[in-house]
Amino acid sequence: MTIVDVNTPGGRYPIHIAAGRLDKIAESIPADATSIVVVTNPVVAGLYGERVERSLAATGKRVLRVELPDGEQYKTWETLNLIFDALLGNRCDRRCVLVALGGGVIGDVTGFAAAVYMRGVRFVQVPTTLLAQVDSSVGGKTAVNHPLGKNMVGAFHQPIAVEVDTDVLKTLPAREISAGLAEVIKYGAILDTEFFAWCERNAPALRALDPEAVTYAIARSCEIKADVVSQDERETTGLRALLNLGHTFGHAIESGLGYGAWLHGEAVGCGMVQAAELSADVAGLPLADAQRIRALVEAIGCPTVAPDLGADRWLDLMQVDKKTEGGELRFVLMPSLGAAKMRTAPEDAVRAVIARTVRIEDSTALPAVVTEVA
Amino acid sequence: MTIVDVNTPGGRYPIHIAAGRLDKIAESIPADATSIVVVTNPVVAGLYGERVERSLAATGKRVLRVELPDGEQYKTWETLNLIFDALLGNRCDRRCVLVALGGGVIGDVTGFAAAVYMRGVRFVQVPTTLLAQVDSSVGGKTAVNHPLGKNMVGAFHQPIAVEVDTDVLKTLPAREISAGLAEVIKYGAILDTEFFAWCERNAPALRALDPEAVTYAIARSCEIKADVVSQDERETTGLRALLNLGHTFGHAIESGLGYGAWLHGEAVGCGMVQAAELSADVAGLPLADAQRIRALVEAIGCPTVAPDLGADRWLDLMQVDKKTEGGELRFVLMPSLGAAKMRTAPEDAVRAVIARTVRIEDSTALPAVVTEVA
Ligand SMILES: NC(=O)c1ccc[n+]([C@@H]2O[C@H](COP(=O)([O-])OP(=O)(O)OC[C@H]3O[C@@H](n4cnc5c(N)ncnc54)[C@H](O)[C@@H]3O)[C@@H](O)[C@H]2O)c1
Ligand SMILES: NC(=O)c1ccc[n+]([C@@H]2O[C@H](COP(=O)([O-])OP(=O)(O)OC[C@H]3O[C@@H](n4cnc5c(N)ncnc54)[C@H](O)[C@@H]3O)[C@@H](O)[C@H]2O)c1
Repeated sequence: MTIVDVNTPGGRYPIHIAAGRLDKIAESIPADATSIVVVTNPVVAGLYGERVERSLAATGKRVLRVELPDGEQYKTWETLNLIFDALLGNRCDRRCVLVALGGGVIGDVTGFAAAVYMRGVRFVQVPTTLLAQVDSSVGGKTAVNHPLGKNMVGAFHQPIAVEVDTDVLKTLPAREISAGLAEVIKYGAILDTEFFAWCERNAPALRALDPEAVTYAIARSCEIKADVVSQDERETTGLRALLNLGHTFGHAIESGLGYGAWLHGEAVGCGMVQAAELSADVAGLPLADAQRIRALVEAIGCPTVAPDLGADRWLDLMQVDKKTEGGELRFVLMPSLGAAKMRTAPEDAVRAVIARTVRIEDSTALPAVVTEVA
Repeated sequence: MTIVDVNTPGGRYPIHIAAGRLDKIAESIPADATSIVVVTNPVVAGLYGERVERSLAATGKRVLRVELPDGEQYKTWETLNLIFDALLGNRCDRRCVLVALGGGVIGDVTGFAAAVYMRGVRFVQVPTTLLAQVDSSVGGKTAVNHPLGKNMVGAFHQPIAVEVDTDVLKTLPAREISAGLAEVIKYGAILDTEFFAWCERNAPALRALDPEAVTYAIARSCEIKADVVSQDERETTGLRALLNLGHTFGHAIESGLGYGAWLHGEAVGCGMVQAAELSADVAGLPLADAQRIRALVEAIGCPTVAPDLGADRWLDLMQVDKKTEGGELRFVLMPSLGAAKMRTAPEDAVRAVIARTVRIEDSTALPAVVTEVA
């Protein structure tokens, strides 16, 4: 088993990474927990619910299950309230422990519920998508969406443990694997050129879920993320903000098309390509490196052509985003590969990048990636 | 001006107490604020909105107003969402500052909105009820209610300043003054016998809003509360939990009759009388001291006879409360006056106290306190 430690002012906890961890989750439940509430969705519950609950039942504690509807469009306050209804309806007290069993949506909603239920209870992340394993389950950012913006309402609330079972990726659709890989290569592009090069060499192995390659990619991603959030939990020094590479463009894609049309990772992948173009235009990134980024996003199976939302709407969507500060639009750019920095860019340059990265002919088409259950 | 400092891990800030502070609130707005959003309700806005906004406009920053419906029954997620709608609709970014202008309801809702909007923005408390000035505006507890329980969803989020204008109490109904005084005498009963005795001597002056007496009572209350929350911000050591004296009984009254029927402070006042009875029965409080508590609650104009909810329902309502831990019912009791402690009590003893403190003949009658606008 690989263990990565996260150490923030808001909490210190381990990330356990291994095949078969689902059967060991009980190890992360504290002795004083009064009840355990597994929060999941019908898809994940059908695949892994009973196994996880059998493991948890071994603690001798009461185990409840809350099933939320599946999908980004349900990452809302209404869904959050279903958790509160269940917790209060079952008289769960301050020492209950929530277990988030699912992808980033379940993790974000469950984490936020844990952050505010009775002003804060403990929770364990059990991420079952690649994106959640390498990114969303680590670092304590939790949130729900608002009709006027993604992740606009949330909290910083660290889990007490993250349990990553690499085996669960076998049931994940290929498109979701590609979306998760976008976040993996992002770490290389931001902070670690060597890891980026390793991803270039291993893109086919990663897409094929080669166990050794996948385990290394997850562990290295978690290490980098743990390192960043340990230094800058609340995104105050500028370091953690670098993890938003590709997100300003990506969020515009997601909210422009309506949450759920593109996967979050796909939008980030495409957004990284756009951020690389902008970096080449205004921040000095060598064209060859912008090309490497585009090629790797393509190699992991993510779209590199953005939807045509209309130039003004693009700008508009990027500005309502919370990366806006005092009206000035800022981006994470790459003056060089593996060394991202926060920079501002003139509106004209942004418009030029949008103009040459969008698909003009069909503005709402989904990315042409084959969806198949592995 | 009296200044009381609060110093918690979650934030350090001053409480400014003086007549006329409403005109000086701009002093608490940080220079880097991008906009100022006054959150209030129609009653308070009608009385003080323009004055406060005039003061804030002097900063040269954009000032917005959000009016929420007035009343405990609106302390809900739906109301909270009105704030998010306004903030996002007006493109308020992470550096906006919220100003909570109103009583405890406005303070709790606005504080919670500030805690979770974009995962946390700054806010200033401008409490306009006595209860809010001596209690709810200090210490960073924020929350909304859930149909199954009061304050069940919330966060710890400290304000950056508390601005107490003692003049605003002049427009507060007498019944609200009495309810606020319940929280004032609570501090004495829990931690400070001398202050309790001072309140006994000054009850008539306090009810008549004698400026000197009121200012001292507010300052001393804020000092005690600041001291407690500075030592135990998140209610983990047991010290802060003592501030819940009277709350287990009080919450049962409030939720049993429906939020808003009794004022929060009235329920706490009556709950203190019940906690004193229970303390005399099981914790060794001299009968004479239980009698002093009853007499002072009466002297400040709060009810001392509880509504008859039915014994089983009383027990039921006290257990869903978040003071429950692992199924065991716990109370803040007073082994002696001015030295409250966390204790458990046998169910029989609790039933006995309920039986002799409820009004049998009319279960839903409002407390017989004259309501008049001063
Ligand atoms: N908190 C953070 O730091 C952070 C970081 C990045 C992304 N996010 C959030 O994460 C969300 C996206 O997460 P996601 O990509 O995991 O999406 P998701 O949670 O919607 O999961 C994708 C789909 O896969 C299904 N699924 C999950 N595990 C499966 C498995 N093992 N086998 C088969 N199907 C499975 C889910 O039911 C869902 O239909 C977004 O809401 C995004 O905002 C948060
Ligand atoms: N956060 C905490 O630590 C804490 C502590 C105690 C109570 N509370 C909460 O506080 C709330 C009760 O607060 P409250 O008693 O201030 O009630 P409130 O906020 O409902 O105010 C009472 C009434 O007085 C009106 N009002 C306010 N200021 C006025 C003024 N100056 N002149 C005339 N009318 C005025 C209000 O509009 C309202 O109608 C409850 O929800 C309770 O849970 C919170």
